[in-house]
Amino acid sequence: MKATRTVRNILANYEGETPGVKAQLCRMLMQGKLGGTGKMIILPVDQGFEHGPARSFAPNPDAYDPHYHYQLAIDAGLSAYAAPLGPLEAGADTFAGQVPTILKVNSANSLMSDTAGKNQAVTASVDDALRLGCSAIGFTIYPGSDAALDMFEEIVEMRREAAACGLATVIWSYPRGEAITKDGETAIDIAAYAAHIAALLGAHIIKVKLSTDHLMLPEAKKVYEAEGIDISTQAARVADCVKSSFNGRRLIVFSGGSKKGADSVYDDARAIRDGGGNGSIIGRNTFQRERGEALDMLGKLIDIYKGKA
Amino acid sequence: MKATRTVRNILANYEGETPGVKAQLCRMLMQGKLGGTGKMIILPVDQGFEHGPARSFAPNPDAYDPHYHYQLAIDAGLSAYAAPLGPLEAGADTFAGQVPTILKVNSANSLMSDTAGKNQAVTASVDDALRLGCSAIGFTIYPGSDAALDMFEEIVEMRREAAACGLATVIWSYPRGEAITKDGETAIDIAAYAAHIAALLGAHIIKVKLSTDHLMLPEAKKVYEAEGIDISTQAARVADCVKSSFNGRRLIVFSGGSKKGADSVYDDARAIRDGGGNGSIIGRNTFQRERGEALDMLGKLIDIYKGKA
Amino acid sequence: MKATRTVRNILANYEGETPGVKAQLCRMLMQGKLGGTGKMIILPVDQGFEHGPARSFAPNPDAYDPHYHYQLAIDAGLSAYAAPLGPLEAGADTFAGQVPTILKVNSANSLMSDTAGKNQAVTASVDDALRLGCSAIGFTIYPGSDAALDMFEEIVEMRREAAACGLATVIWSYPRGEAITKDGETAIDIAAYAAHIAALLGAHIIKVKLSTDHLMLPEAKKVYEAEGIDISTQAARVADCVKSSFNGRRLIVFSGGSKKGADSVYDDARAIRDGGGNGSIIGRNTFQRERGEALDMLGKLIDIYKGKA
Amino acid sequence: MKATRTVRNILANYEGETPGVKAQLCRMLMQGKLGGTGKMIILPVDQGFEHGPARSFAPNPDAYDPHYHYQLAIDAGLSAYAAPLGPLEAGADTFAGQVPTILKVNSANSLMSDTAGKNQAVTASVDDALRLGCSAIGFTIYPGSDAALDMFEEIVEMRREAAACGLATVIWSYPRGEAITKDGETAIDIAAYAAHIAALLGAHIIKVKLSTDHLMLPEAKKVYEAEGIDISTQAARVADCVKSSFNGRRLIVFSGGSKKGADSVYDDARAIRDGGGNGSIIGRNTFQRERGEALDMLGKLIDIYKGKA
Amino acid sequence: MKATRTVRNILANYEGETPGVKAQLCRMLMQGKLGGTGKMIILPVDQGFEHGPARSFAPNPDAYDPHYHYQLAIDAGLSAYAAPLGPLEAGADTFAGQVPTILKVNSANSLMSDTAGKNQAVTASVDDALRLGCSAIGFTIYPGSDAALDMFEEIVEMRREAAACGLATVIWSYPRGEAITKDGETAIDIAAYAAHIAALLGAHIIKVKLSTDHLMLPEAKKVYEAEGIDISTQAARVADCVKSSFNGRRLIVFSGGSKKGADSVYDDARAIRDGGGNGSIIGRNTFQRERGEALDMLGKLIDIYKGKA
Repeated sequence: MKATRTVRNILANYEGETPGVKAQLCRMLMQGKLGGTGKMIILPVDQGFEHGPARSFAPNPDAYDPHYHYQLAIDAGLSAYAAPLGPLEAGADTFAGQVPTILKVNSANSLMSDTAGKNQAVTASVDDALRLGCSAIGFTIYPGSDAALDMFEEIVEMRREAAACGLATVIWSYPRGEAITKDGETAIDIAAYAAHIAALLGAHIIKVKLSTDHLMLPEAKKVYEAEGIDISTQAARVADCVKSSFNGRRLIVFSGGSKKGADSVYDDARAIRDGGGNGSIIGRNTFQRERGEALDMLGKLIDIYKGKA
Repeated sequence: MKATRTVRNILANYEGETPGVKAQLCRMLMQGKLGGTGKMIILPVDQGFEHGPARSFAPNPDAYDPHYHYQLAIDAGLSAYAAPLGPLEAGADTFAGQVPTILKVNSANSLMSDTAGKNQAVTASVDDALRLGCSAIGFTIYPGSDAALDMFEEIVEMRREAAACGLATVIWSYPRGEAITKDGETAIDIAAYAAHIAALLGAHIIKVKLSTDHLMLPEAKKVYEAEGIDISTQAARVADCVKSSFNGRRLIVFSGGSKKGADSVYDDARAIRDGGGNGSIIGRNTFQRERGEALDMLGKLIDIYKGKA
Repeated sequence: MKATRTVRNILANYEGETPGVKAQLCRMLMQGKLGGTGKMIILPVDQGFEHGPARSFAPNPDAYDPHYHYQLAIDAGLSAYAAPLGPLEAGADTFAGQVPTILKVNSANSLMSDTAGKNQAVTASVDDALRLGCSAIGFTIYPGSDAALDMFEEIVEMRREAAACGLATVIWSYPRGEAITKDGETAIDIAAYAAHIAALLGAHIIKVKLSTDHLMLPEAKKVYEAEGIDISTQAARVADCVKSSFNGRRLIVFSGGSKKGADSVYDDARAIRDGGGNGSIIGRNTFQRERGEALDMLGKLIDIYKGKA
Repeated sequence: MKATRTVRNILANYEGETPGVKAQLCRMLMQGKLGGTGKMIILPVDQGFEHGPARSFAPNPDAYDPHYHYQLAIDAGLSAYAAPLGPLEAGADTFAGQVPTILKVNSANSLMSDTAGKNQAVTASVDDALRLGCSAIGFTIYPGSDAALDMFEEIVEMRREAAACGLATVIWSYPRGEAITKDGETAIDIAAYAAHIAALLGAHIIKVKLSTDHLMLPEAKKVYEAEGIDISTQAARVADCVKSSFNGRRLIVFSGGSKKGADSVYDDARAIRDGGGNGSIIGRNTFQRERGEALDMLGKLIDIYKGKA
Repeated sequence: MKATRTVRNILANYEGETPGVKAQLCRMLMQGKLGGTGKMIILPVDQGFEHGPARSFAPNPDAYDPHYHYQLAIDAGLSAYAAPLGPLEAGADTFAGQVPTILKVNSANSLMSDTAGKNQAVTASVDDALRLGCSAIGFTIYPGSDAALDMFEEIVEMRREAAACGLATVIWSYPRGEAITKDGETAIDIAAYAAHIAALLGAHIIKVKLSTDHLMLPEAKKVYEAEGIDISTQAARVADCVKSSFNGRRLIVFSGGSKKGADSVYDDARAIRDGGGNGSIIGRNTFQRERGEALDMLGKLIDIYKGKA
């Protein structure tokens, strides 16, 4: 499978990285229906850890079975499938080689008291990722949490180990915790900062949430206003995040959030596309829908990223 | 000993796992009077650590002797015997090879202040398990405790090491601690979540408590009600836990709790069987009874799991 | 030196242990005037660490010199001499091979604030014990302290390393800390629990204090009363601790406490003997007495354990 | 490239250091337009981490691109370019060998609550520096912070590893935290102390801020006054810092702070030069200016250090 | 250089220690003008770390240069020179082999808040000491601090590593912290206890402060009074510390404290000599004096230890 010029140009930005990492990035960028376009759609299924099984899977009970998600990602022609250790292991053999997988190596849960702090447990390793034939590891950081410095130190260690083994690293950069207001969690200045931190830490693919036009930090607000940075549309805000990811030298994808109407999902994707983002990580909006409906939605999203919808 | 088709089907769910782990799971599933049925009864004796020697063994003083439990598990035809380092060592030579053993590698005790938190000490290692010829390690997690993230990190490390050495991992998933109400410790939404977390962490065998029809988390309650998940009977609740264990792709056994009437013990077993669970871990209800009585009870439980009682 | 049948029977209880550990237990059990009887008297000198030099040695200033204790243990025909790193090193060469030594690998001191917690520092290693030709390591745990889980984890690690090198492990199990009342420190239910924990952790020799007939834990009190466990005499209480040490499968010795009248010391020893205990660890009651007096006392204690006094 | 006598004299002060470290110091001292003079100008770009991307780069949007800074350092003839992992990686291949690079291995950010404390995360390693062909690692310490002892221990470990691999170590010594008043952060007694601590820890190049004539510590104030130490001018204060850096045996450079008028920047440089300092680390004052303007400013600074302006 | 009988007798007390350690002790005991007498004077220069450069060196500005101290120790004929990593490195090559050096491997500073606790940072390693050709490592413990247990664990680890490499260990035992009153820091019962703890931890050379006749601990006070221990003179108190150092089996030196009158310094030395101590560690009283004056003072101290003054 020969990489397209678009993909080769993206890979060229990863200077000094091991050929193994570039090969895995190439594999994901050439996979499925968006293969070769420089765009990606990733299916992430770690909501069972975050919210529990009933909230995640009861709306579409077939999704209790880990095989369901592998099959959905394959049939929809997605770029990759991301999940924690247990679910990946449950289908590693059956689906070996059919879709790139991302091992989510840390996870939070809904059974934590406030004093336990905003943090996640490291629940898998680079060795696990290698053993299971994954293309990348995925790791969540919480910029703004009192645990953030520790989380940064964990991921740089794991990233180094992963890259040395030829695995790529995806960082979920989710502002949250003691230094972040509720509105700040989706403020554009914070989102751009979160993307930048992921890039600084060496992420190969950055995952952030779509943002609002709120500005949380007074010092940043001043600059946004003084320099006239456009944050009036979702596409403009996506563009600000792309610029903060080394001026577009790093792949950045955006997450969809909780289940919502299909039109809203499509609008998000058009904004990501128009702002120069590289795609979507979309979970609950697909696997909580009936399979046929989910496949239709994913097909339309692919069309959007191809500029056909 | 040729594995039955039932057992081979169970083993096939452990995709990508080492042959060593599968061999140990097979050994336990083919052991004793339930051998080959896909059902298990495990004798766990760590109550001396949890509650002290008098509360555990004074009702049946023969049980002060570690040899007593090995012999009970063998004579009753059970699937495995689980205990901490000291007691396993005290009979490791005498009973070598006669019953699969599970080394309980962490333990709590009743001499802890509230500020010490809900946690356990790691009191044995994978090396100990190998040296003592064990089939598996057993580890307790407390989802909901402020120590939970640390406990998750400990068991994923030990599980990885154990699996690499060909040992299986049993996770005791007991919701407890700062984020869990008293009723919540046995609420069905929490029990299913606890089983799911164990599966996500890579448990080969999951151990949870039987649950009530209480729903602790408001967000989960909404979903249980909206989706009409049946939690009205113990068997239905067992089925919810089984579904949350990767739709039955992982072995799940249920614990019996403190000593109670024999009929109640039998009713529990029937519910586990009817809900699709894989069996019982039953300690105090057997070793705190006189030996003859305990053997009778275990015989009847075996009949129940065989569908004969 | 051929081991007696009594000693061989004791060693047979250490199933699955390395020959090295058994050899060291044999060495201590065959040493001195109690050699071969299955009884032991150990001289422990870590009070300088715990209480400072003046309180420990000023009553008998010869005892400031580490050589004094080696010589006392040898001349009295004791089973072993236990001390921290510094004092053992100060006589390791002069007395090499003349008496088994136990390296006390952790220690507390009297210069700690309340907020520093009930804990000890690990002040020596298994490597030190090997280098100094010791027979065993000694380690104190504080069941009931907020540091207890950490202490348990430390000793199981050190015990594993020691056993692999052919060294035995003695656990000083001293209930103390946030979860223990003052009376509870010597309550019989707590003492038996403490002995049991040491056994569970893999101690080869267990050291506990003699206890009173107080029962601290309400749940335990209920069982002691319901089952009619005899705790009316010191001998009965010793027997309860022996039973809690795997029904006598582990060596258990009792400590003497602060200096007191000779008759009281002898009464303690008779109770230990009559309750089935394996002997005494006796420090201040010997080295704070003038040497001649100490030798007389130790001679009489040996006679008591031999059933002659 | 033959080292000048001036440079050889400087290197001679690094007694007992590995030839690899000396070679990297030599490389930086012989690089660019100040090569051979014993003076240095370093371009540091870690403000994106510290203050976020908008505050750092929006005033001169070309600076969002990591290549911009490499090119600026090269075109201006600077001694070295310092940045965190991500940005160095983004240009490591394109600019390989064209300018010495310093990998900033720890970083702070503006998204931390007060309770998170004054600390930084270690976000890169010596291995990363080697892989990326760097000349040195850079590390920030916060003397006066409750995290200071930990930071000291981190850098001495990393410095040892770096030196053994032939990499130099630059320490950013920034007084900050619980023991430092706001005025104290730039007080001359604190600045000199901070420089001295960096020297004691083994820094090869020391980076401190320019200071005021405030004296924070009463004990130090007494000595400054009693001994009549001149702190009336910036040059005199630079000289005090130089003297505190082993009487000039260690290279010391001064940072410029936030963006300000060009004349002020030039005055600072003259004071550094006249006080015997080795140069400037200057970031925002250059990259937040338009490129042509920045090159002019850097050219003038070079002239100042050469004594021509 | 043949060791004197006095020195050989001292070395014989270090039973079971490596020949490497004994060789380094011998080297220091045979060095300089006190060589062979069993007495030592050590020059320690870590005050720049503890109090900052101005308070330490401004009274005698030549002392800002690390070479100054090497030269002073050599010219005065002292036994050894002790300093942190940075200053030792600054002269390691120039003065190689001319005076035994002690690498001070941990250090405190005056920029710490109360909540940071009484602790020190480990700022150098055994590897550093070997690389720099040192004879020993030096380590400060704070008995009575909440950090004391951690400090004890650090030094026993470093001592073990050092001894295995043939380096001696000097322990600065300075009571300080939460459990110690201001008067208690120099109380004789605390000083003797501090010396004893250092000996127990395996120190080859013990450094304590001279003490007052205050008794801090009530339990100790009782014993001092009951046993009639003489603490009325400085010499008597030195003797109590010597006795607490394994009855004189360990070298013990005393520190001089802040700068004071020369007569007072001489009186201290006579008390150390008369009480059986092994010498002085004297820093500020020498390097804060003008060089000629310092050499005179050191000459007189040497005479005192030789019994000539």
